[in-house]
Amino acid sequence: MNDRIARRMEDIKPFQVMALLARARELEAQGRSIVHMEIGEPDFITPQPIVEAGIAALRAGRIHYTPAVGLPALREAIANWYSKDAGITVPPERIIVTPGASGALLLAMAALLNPGEAVLMADPGYPCNRYFARLLEGKIIGIPVTEASAYQLSSSHIDSYWTPETRAALVASPANPTGTLLSQTSLAALIESVESRMGTLIVDEIYHGLVYEGRAATALGLSEHALVINSFSKYFGMTGWRLGWLVVPKNFIGAAEKLAQNLFLAASTPAQYAALAAFKLETLKVLETRRVEFQRRRDFLLPGLRSLGFHVPVTPQGAFYIYADCSQFSADSFAFARELLEEIGVAVTPGVDFGCNASRQHLRFAYTTSMEQLQEGLKRLQAYL
Amino acid sequence: MNDRIARRMEDIKPFQVMALLARARELEAQGRSIVHMEIGEPDFITPQPIVEAGIAALRAGRIHYTPAVGLPALREAIANWYSKDAGITVPPERIIVTPGASGALLLAMAALLNPGEAVLMADPGYPCNRYFARLLEGKIIGIPVTEASAYQLSSSHIDSYWTPETRAALVASPANPTGTLLSQTSLAALIESVESRMGTLIVDEIYHGLVYEGRAATALGLSEHALVINSFSKYFGMTGWRLGWLVVPKNFIGAAEKLAQNLFLAASTPAQYAALAAFKLETLKVLETRRVEFQRRRDFLLPGLRSLGFHVPVTPQGAFYIYADCSQFSADSFAFARELLEEIGVAVTPGVDFGCNASRQHLRFAYTTSMEQLQEGLKRLQAYL
Ligand SMILES: Cc1ncc(COP(=O)(O)O)c(C=O)c1O
Ligand SMILES: Cc1ncc(COP(=O)(O)O)c(C=O)c1O
Repeated sequence: MNDRIARRMEDIKPFQVMALLARARELEAQGRSIVHMEIGEPDFITPQPIVEAGIAALRAGRIHYTPAVGLPALREAIANWYSKDAGITVPPERIIVTPGASGALLLAMAALLNPGEAVLMADPGYPCNRYFARLLEGKIIGIPVTEASAYQLSSSHIDSYWTPETRAALVASPANPTGTLLSQTSLAALIESVESRMGTLIVDEIYHGLVYEGRAATALGLSEHALVINSFSKYFGMTGWRLGWLVVPKNFIGAAEKLAQNLFLAASTPAQYAALAAFKLETLKVLETRRVEFQRRRDFLLPGLRSLGFHVPVTPQGAFYIYADCSQFSADSFAFARELLEEIGVAVTPGVDFGCNASRQHLRFAYTTSMEQLQEGLKRLQAYL
Repeated sequence: MNDRIARRMEDIKPFQVMALLARARELEAQGRSIVHMEIGEPDFITPQPIVEAGIAALRAGRIHYTPAVGLPALREAIANWYSKDAGITVPPERIIVTPGASGALLLAMAALLNPGEAVLMADPGYPCNRYFARLLEGKIIGIPVTEASAYQLSSSHIDSYWTPETRAALVASPANPTGTLLSQTSLAALIESVESRMGTLIVDEIYHGLVYEGRAATALGLSEHALVINSFSKYFGMTGWRLGWLVVPKNFIGAAEKLAQNLFLAASTPAQYAALAAFKLETLKVLETRRVEFQRRRDFLLPGLRSLGFHVPVTPQGAFYIYADCSQFSADSFAFARELLEEIGVAVTPGVDFGCNASRQHLRFAYTTSMEQLQEGLKRLQAYL
């Protein structure tokens, strides 16, 4: 009776893949070999220059709280990066350093959403997005997206799904779980659609840099009203350091700072000092080698899966995911994922973790493991299917 | 028009002290010497064994996400600590590792509070508490506390202020900004009062370990329903690492894990590995030396302030704060804080940062600076007042 749990917790779901991961670890402990294609982070460790900068900061005693919005030098460095990488001027004042893109998503939604107001988002999509909105008593409108729009929201989705209480739409490019991109044209059209309705587009650019065909356009070049999220987790290889950022319109700077102060106090200090080395030439060289390696893996795994009968209608151009239709093999991808794990020791993420749009027909394969492991995985799948 | 900010942001206030801190930095840049007594974190750096463990983890490539609720070894280590330090058995499953006590406060309130439900808390109190509740559309009932209850909530406050929509009460012992403790008896009475109303007591124990008279009793020894918050920030000297924990009743484990997954993904990995060294004998020896030093500072600053005419009716037994009535000198402690900074280069935190109960009559002095600086500060105050 004392232990009453808030109602929102009925709607907030755990990651289903965790049960599979736990089972995979159990099997490994029993001596089984498991090919891990369920993991949503690079297998690489943090580039050495970043690690060394982190260690130097620790040795120098840089362990106190930083300003809530981040070290001035890091905000500058991120602004410089936009200038060098994308030719875009972003005043450092608009850059809020956060505990991961996770922290940035919370800040963005907390600054935007009133209770009862809705956010449009793609289904399938990154699962946490809907729960940030739920936490804030917002409404989530999950839009079933298909290959027709490369699993992305399009301006015609905005036309169809926008309601009077809709406040914002959220997209990710490259996206999780599909790895697909929004072209600059589509992104511009989305912005136009959302902003003409006096709404705000939130753009999650966490997989920027991990792109294998073309380039991912940043929304910062197209709108001064968009809220743009990024992170040191994926491209920069710093997942466990918990560091990201949020770029806000000028009008939101005060709100974002107040939220950062009260919700986080600040992001990790050693991580921030370490990240100062993320934009160094020697780091960027390492990151480019890794990008090429991810591309090589994709170019191996994607045709391999397709030739086995997995349907992947849109070529994933970025991130490290392949979202594959497995309905040829099973009517229930969750059961199928469990089966693959038990029978052949191949771990993948079931579609249910990303929404409810045809999720029982899909699996997400992550190529966050070595070529050898991917080869072994494909071999096992081939023998089994 | 696109840049509409959510209504909650009207209620969420920035830390007022930040403006003073910025001004202090400006004065310092102009060559003025400033005595900092406004800073809410230890001036000491992280104990060497913890730093070395962090560096070793980085060198070993431990930079990937950990489980959302924390490294199993760290949850064990915290459980062992409760056993050794307080003679209390806490199953590691009930311990959720978080990004600071800040993360723990967010988890606790998100798991407990429905929109419109209220939390009772002391005014003055740690400012962020009310904004976590506000974020979740909860109500905040700030109870004006006085020296009569050592600025703590008492069971008679619960009797007077509990309403049908009250879900929980929150206390901190030692408290910020007052440094006062709840005795084991008072804590037990509070728990009894709250739990007999089918409510939940949240107990923030972040300043445990920094106690100079008696001992702070942990609520874990008194209730299986309380939510208990702690952190590596203050006693363990790890503020910028962003690591804390939340102990939840058994019934809340699932909810807390789902929230940790979705809101944070996980706490910092290097910080978690580093914290494994926090309970080592050699670390604890360093921490004890520091505790003694804090006590020495309090024993110097407190009589000094009192003899100048600051009224401190309750001796602060813990943390590193003195909450002083300055109404003999000024009717507006915020203006007075600004005056002290401009005129004599003494930086303190104005009462308004901690609530609205007699806040214009109070200042918070933090003894998070050296004895020499405290001496200098007192000398300047004496000459000026
Ligand atoms: C699309 C997307 N956004 C945000 C995140 C959160 O990442 P982090 O908090 O580590 O930056 C993830 C992590 O997997 C993601 O896939
Ligand atoms: C009473 C109290 N609780 C919680 C916190 C949050 O600390 P952290 O998030 O660094 O653990 C603080 C920080 O000053 C505090 O004073």
